[in-house]
Amino acid sequence: MLIVGELINTSRKAVKEAVLNKDADFIKKLAQEQYDAGADYIDVNCGTMVNNEAEVMTWLVNCIQEQVEAPLCIDSPDAAVLDAGLALCKYDQPMLNSISDEDDRFDSILPIMLKHKAKVVALCMDSTGMPETAEDRVKVARNLYHKLTKAGVPDDDIYFDPLIKPVSSISTAGIEVLEAIKQIKSEFPDVHFTCGLSNISFGLPNRKVLNRLFAVQIMAVGMDGYVLDPTDKEMMGSLIASTTLLDQDEFNCDYLKAHRKGLYK
Amino acid sequence: MLIVGELINTSRKAVKEAVLNKDADFIKKLAQEQYDAGADYIDVNCGTMVNNEAEVMTWLVNCIQEQVEAPLCIDSPDAAVLDAGLALCKYDQPMLNSISDEDDRFDSILPIMLKHKAKVVALCMDSTGMPETAEDRVKVARNLYHKLTKAGVPDDDIYFDPLIKPVSSISTAGIEVLEAIKQIKSEFPDVHFTCGLSNISFGLPNRKVLNRLFAVQIMAVGMDGYVLDPTDKEMMGSLIASTTLLDQDEFNCDYLKAHRKGLYK
Repeated sequence: MLIVGELINTSRKAVKEAVLNKDADFIKKLAQEQYDAGADYIDVNCGTMVNNEAEVMTWLVNCIQEQVEAPLCIDSPDAAVLDAGLALCKYDQPMLNSISDEDDRFDSILPIMLKHKAKVVALCMDSTGMPETAEDRVKVARNLYHKLTKAGVPDDDIYFDPLIKPVSSISTAGIEVLEAIKQIKSEFPDVHFTCGLSNISFGLPNRKVLNRLFAVQIMAVGMDGYVLDPTDKEMMGSLIASTTLLDQDEFNCDYLKAHRKGLYK
Repeated sequence: MLIVGELINTSRKAVKEAVLNKDADFIKKLAQEQYDAGADYIDVNCGTMVNNEAEVMTWLVNCIQEQVEAPLCIDSPDAAVLDAGLALCKYDQPMLNSISDEDDRFDSILPIMLKHKAKVVALCMDSTGMPETAEDRVKVARNLYHKLTKAGVPDDDIYFDPLIKPVSSISTAGIEVLEAIKQIKSEFPDVHFTCGLSNISFGLPNRKVLNRLFAVQIMAVGMDGYVLDPTDKEMMGSLIASTTLLDQDEFNCDYLKAHRKGLYK
């Protein structure tokens, strides 16, 4: 299981303010907290800073790396910003968030990815728009898989994001994602998956409960990556317990460690 | 989803005492509480009363039916006790817990089942013992399916219990069950499943968390029946939310009702 900590994102008010005030301590604290809580990667997203995104990305990446020796997930729709961020990553293999099968995006981002040998979040989306059915997602994943591997990307570096939508507006939104994961995994057993969870519960009460349970359901069919707030104890506790139930936690070590850390209180 | 309330079982000390003291009010209260909490069936098990099991079963069934108009799940290894209990069931189609592919058990229980047109819990176990792998379970389910349907039992009345074992002693216990459910469901799409959950967590801390998450994981691959304590709000809340995520809750009605009942507080 791969956990990407999502908290350093300028769409969050406190992060935006920290950036505007050059409050490095705030950013460092957020990085440290996520790392301590079990994030394998720290996501860095300043997509809302449209006028100086590359400059802010550089500042954030440097800030974070002064604090923690964690690999980073550089998150931007802009190839130049991705290039600037990835060039600075010092610890382990960086991750790029994200490529898709939209023509312009694929062509502009692939070279950046290859240049920095980054792991990649590959959105199951192409120029025809957002996917609806499982089959839509599988079709895009298949195209992306062939284009990426042809360019030399190892299967192990590919993280397909099936794109989760709200069950409140589309009742089949959950089962289409489950089915897509099953099919992609059976076709390409060595790739990985990743997702942002919060869309699933949009428009319903107790969103955290729904997000957590959907995280557990999709893990049962192959999901192995999550972009989320790792300081959410109930979410992290649920995910770790789920790995134990699915024979992904040797000698129940992670589960017992989480238990001792108080994640189940 | 079918919920079978498990609390009326003489292996529980308070229930045994109520039986010994002919405390009908205690049994009625337990039946009512389970029914109010959402049990579709009330399980009745007095297997520990070895000397007068049929007599106790008769008393319990009458007691419960004086209180609630709920269908019952008559639970015994003994054909005569099953016959006595099922003969008294007044409300809707009763359920029999359980048949298996052990020679003696199958032959003695099938006629009782047919006589009372009961739904049946079919354990994935035969005379060679408890199953280990998914394949063991599928093999028994296949035999049972063919024997039951040949005897005229409709697919819709069959509830396969894959038999859950502890992940603490067998790390693959969870994934073998997931795989068995997937395979049985793909081979016999119209049958149902049921399970007791608590074995999965034996030997580990925070057992309720593990039971709950495993319940949700197996639902994602087809589990649709649970023998459990329906007054456990977190468990029921999780199961109902899971049906919502899996497009089994039209207009999110059950979820919103559970929310208003305070199941997510």
